Amino acid sequence: MRNYGMYLSDIQRLFGGELHVGEQRSAADLVITSVGTIEHASETEITFLANPKYRSALDDSRAGAVIISPSNFDATTKPRIVTDNPYAYFAKVAQHFSPRTAYPPGVNTLAAINPTARVAKSASIAEFVSIGANAVIGERVRIGAGCVIGENVVIGDDGELAAHVTLYHHCVIGKRALLHAGVVIGADGFGFAHENGAWIKIPQTGRVVMGNDCEIGASSTIDRGTMQDTIIGNGVKIDNQVQVGHNSIIGDNTLISGCTGIAGSTTIGQRVIIGGAVSITGHLSICDDAILSANAFVMKSITTPGMYSAGMPLMPHREWLKNAAQLRHLDEMANKLKKLGK
Amino acid sequence: MRNYGMYLSDIQRLFGGELHVGEQRSAADLVITSVGTIEHASETEITFLANPKYRSALDDSRAGAVIISPSNFDATTKPRIVTDNPYAYFAKVAQHFSPRTAYPPGVNTLAAINPTARVAKSASIAEFVSIGANAVIGERVRIGAGCVIGENVVIGDDGELAAHVTLYHHCVIGKRALLHAGVVIGADGFGFAHENGAWIKIPQTGRVVMGNDCEIGASSTIDRGTMQDTIIGNGVKIDNQVQVGHNSIIGDNTLISGCTGIAGSTTIGQRVIIGGAVSITGHLSICDDAILSANAFVMKSITTPGMYSAGMPLMPHREWLKNAAQLRHLDEMANKLKKLGK
Amino acid sequence: MRNYGMYLSDIQRLFGGELHVGEQRSAADLVITSVGTIEHASETEITFLANPKYRSALDDSRAGAVIISPSNFDATTKPRIVTDNPYAYFAKVAQHFSPRTAYPPGVNTLAAINPTARVAKSASIAEFVSIGANAVIGERVRIGAGCVIGENVVIGDDGELAAHVTLYHHCVIGKRALLHAGVVIGADGFGFAHENGAWIKIPQTGRVVMGNDCEIGASSTIDRGTMQDTIIGNGVKIDNQVQVGHNSIIGDNTLISGCTGIAGSTTIGQRVIIGGAVSITGHLSICDDAILSANAFVMKSITTPGMYSAGMPLMPHREWLKNAAQLRHLDEMANKLKKLGK
Repeated sequence: MRNYGMYLSDIQRLFGGELHVGEQRSAADLVITSVGTIEHASETEITFLANPKYRSALDDSRAGAVIISPSNFDATTKPRIVTDNPYAYFAKVAQHFSPRTAYPPGVNTLAAINPTARVAKSASIAEFVSIGANAVIGERVRIGAGCVIGENVVIGDDGELAAHVTLYHHCVIGKRALLHAGVVIGADGFGFAHENGAWIKIPQTGRVVMGNDCEIGASSTIDRGTMQDTIIGNGVKIDNQVQVGHNSIIGDNTLISGCTGIAGSTTIGQRVIIGGAVSITGHLSICDDAILSANAFVMKSITTPGMYSAGMPLMPHREWLKNAAQLRHLDEMANKLKKLGK
Repeated sequence: MRNYGMYLSDIQRLFGGELHVGEQRSAADLVITSVGTIEHASETEITFLANPKYRSALDDSRAGAVIISPSNFDATTKPRIVTDNPYAYFAKVAQHFSPRTAYPPGVNTLAAINPTARVAKSASIAEFVSIGANAVIGERVRIGAGCVIGENVVIGDDGELAAHVTLYHHCVIGKRALLHAGVVIGADGFGFAHENGAWIKIPQTGRVVMGNDCEIGASSTIDRGTMQDTIIGNGVKIDNQVQVGHNSIIGDNTLISGCTGIAGSTTIGQRVIIGGAVSITGHLSICDDAILSANAFVMKSITTPGMYSAGMPLMPHREWLKNAAQLRHLDEMANKLKKLGK
Repeated sequence: MRNYGMYLSDIQRLFGGELHVGEQRSAADLVITSVGTIEHASETEITFLANPKYRSALDDSRAGAVIISPSNFDATTKPRIVTDNPYAYFAKVAQHFSPRTAYPPGVNTLAAINPTARVAKSASIAEFVSIGANAVIGERVRIGAGCVIGENVVIGDDGELAAHVTLYHHCVIGKRALLHAGVVIGADGFGFAHENGAWIKIPQTGRVVMGNDCEIGASSTIDRGTMQDTIIGNGVKIDNQVQVGHNSIIGDNTLISGCTGIAGSTTIGQRVIIGGAVSITGHLSICDDAILSANAFVMKSITTPGMYSAGMPLMPHREWLKNAAQLRHLDEMANKLKKLGK
């Protein structure tokens, strides 16, 4: 699927930045066949330097060229493309060398498509796919083997569903979505009323409505709303094994790392960055541009942008036993200290 | 799927409570078409007030009627149904307006049913479903697209399996179960003996036996027992992405929120409420009516009902860095404090 | 699937150890039909004693024979097989009585196999399995219903995939693998470059390469590498709902318990034991033979073998409220204490 390569100068022409060939005047004619890390790139691959701490690693790199920021300009004598955001530049070059797979249009004979569903002719539907009544599948959408698309689901143009994705009835997926294997969108939210020691189910009649340009990782689950919808904004990126509860609202371009759980009815702003294994309880509000460290536990709303953390650092087990035991006495310790201070 | 509506007075006749129409004598003839939240209900929808903190929100609500407790009776002049448990009442009305989908009986031609399996004629088996030898599928059971039912599995009457549910061989699912997409029941428990630096598998020969009226959320997993069975009681409700280890026993009407993990051989009582992202280690016993806050880490058995919590509150990152560093010195601090006290 | 039983003396002949029949000279001729726990084993079943704390339980056990270590030799007068590692011995006997299911070779007529795939004649491919172009399926491999095997995937001999396993393109699975239902191997790692408030995807062009004798639990996910491969060593055992991020390297015979998340580019040594619900951040290195307690949060590399822990112990909710509040003031407390000490 990779290209046969392109001139370094063509990369600069396509993606911008300034090309510096240094002593090697012929470097503009260097053929670049792919991208690579500083450590592993070969002589025909281009790498990037974003973190200054890897400057010295460049000395040992075999990379044929480097994408670099002005501040690191002199970190190498290799041919360079200078740009303010080397990592984003690198991402674009990498995408150029590894474009999304193009799938042949058409419906596999082993798929089960309800006759009332509308599937674009340019869509590619794999074997063992089930598509329910009145579903609408956009142009060039790829639905991988074994996906189950419920009634009245809408999938926007250019979406890609890997294997075993489940979209429950009436959910809406925006354009250019990428949903990985095992994703479940629109299962019932977890809502029960308590009566005499038992639980009565609250029907979950809302939908999941997802914006454009979202990516959802393997085995992540986003529940449908109770009476309103669960809403995922544009450009939201969600890692594997993330759980989003019913009625949640996730703002545009927010990024959620793996194993994070977000309880119901929580509203998360735009451009929020959530680390791995974060737990966020229900009915909160997290403001735009907040950053939550990995493993954080969020019990209260956050109203000021910035980075927030929680959690106890790892210790050798014996030290932990002693220190953790004192956690039961912290309040007592604080009181003693107050008295002594007087 | 929704009804065309019913008189408010008919709701009271069906579900009990006291109807108060206030000034609006004709309100008994009000046609209610659905349920809604205080915030979003329309003039033909009925809402509920359970939490007094939303009393004032009722003033702005467009809801046509309210289910309310005696103590909040005067929170509105709207037509009211007065009942001791408004939320449970609301749940029943909501269920009335949004009954479970009825699926047409019969086996889809694209399902693979072992000839020795016994499938009730009233059951509805979707496309790409696999049912193994000697499985028994009860009356009116719905099995969604792509489910895989192992040999000798038993599914009680009126169960519903969404897409991609896997039931391993010999597992037993009670009546009226609702298993969401991606649920895996009966995979091998995690049991290995250590020998010379490597791991020897302990065969997992028990089953999972689940009572009646259970709901299991998307992508949750319940492992089969090692030599005995893993047992899930009646009325147990489990959210998404929950893991229940082998040989665990979960008591009736216990509720487990999303992302929680329960290690093996732990026994959990009845009516226990477990918050999200809780971790419970193995070989413990949790008594009836315990409540575990979200994110709690349970290392010891619990013998007294009540609410239990753990975890460090979220802080701005810089404050956390300073405070977390002291966690390594807590024992030392306690000792210093003791000396100073003398 | 169980055997009809074997003489106790034959167990000793097959698996070693010393047979002691005590007073019961005919015990060598005892027919053993299965294995069982101390508590539940019947008169024709063999049990084991590994943990001395269960010594007294042996008195009430109905087990017909016991696998026991020399140090516990006198814990029972039952017929005994004496061996240094009773649990490992027990595992082997248990495997003998419950061997892996043998599946009939051949490809189900409802499977979709790309004509360029090479499937061994001894392999067993169930219904609704999809196998992509150029995939190579080894001898005696079992692929369960609904699995999706991508292009160019290689599965070594004697592997078993339960239902709904997804293997993305180009991934390599070693010999004797056991992958449980819902496992996803090779979904895209979570890599994005930030530009103007939005996220640009880094193509994930590496693979997952897994060694021999690995077991992966239900719904676990292992992401493909970004430019290099994600590597899982030989004999690695992974429980349910574990997430392994891109570019991670897991050493031989490491064991990872359920609900654990490992972020990207982290290298984990050999024989590491990781408890449940552990979070490990990215770009770390964990040395051989480290042990991480359940719920540990690992932010720094570990260079010395041993056991490491973190986390706050569970408390009654009111105590927790008071103690947790002081966590925000720990640094302050430490400073006060230092002053008072002077």
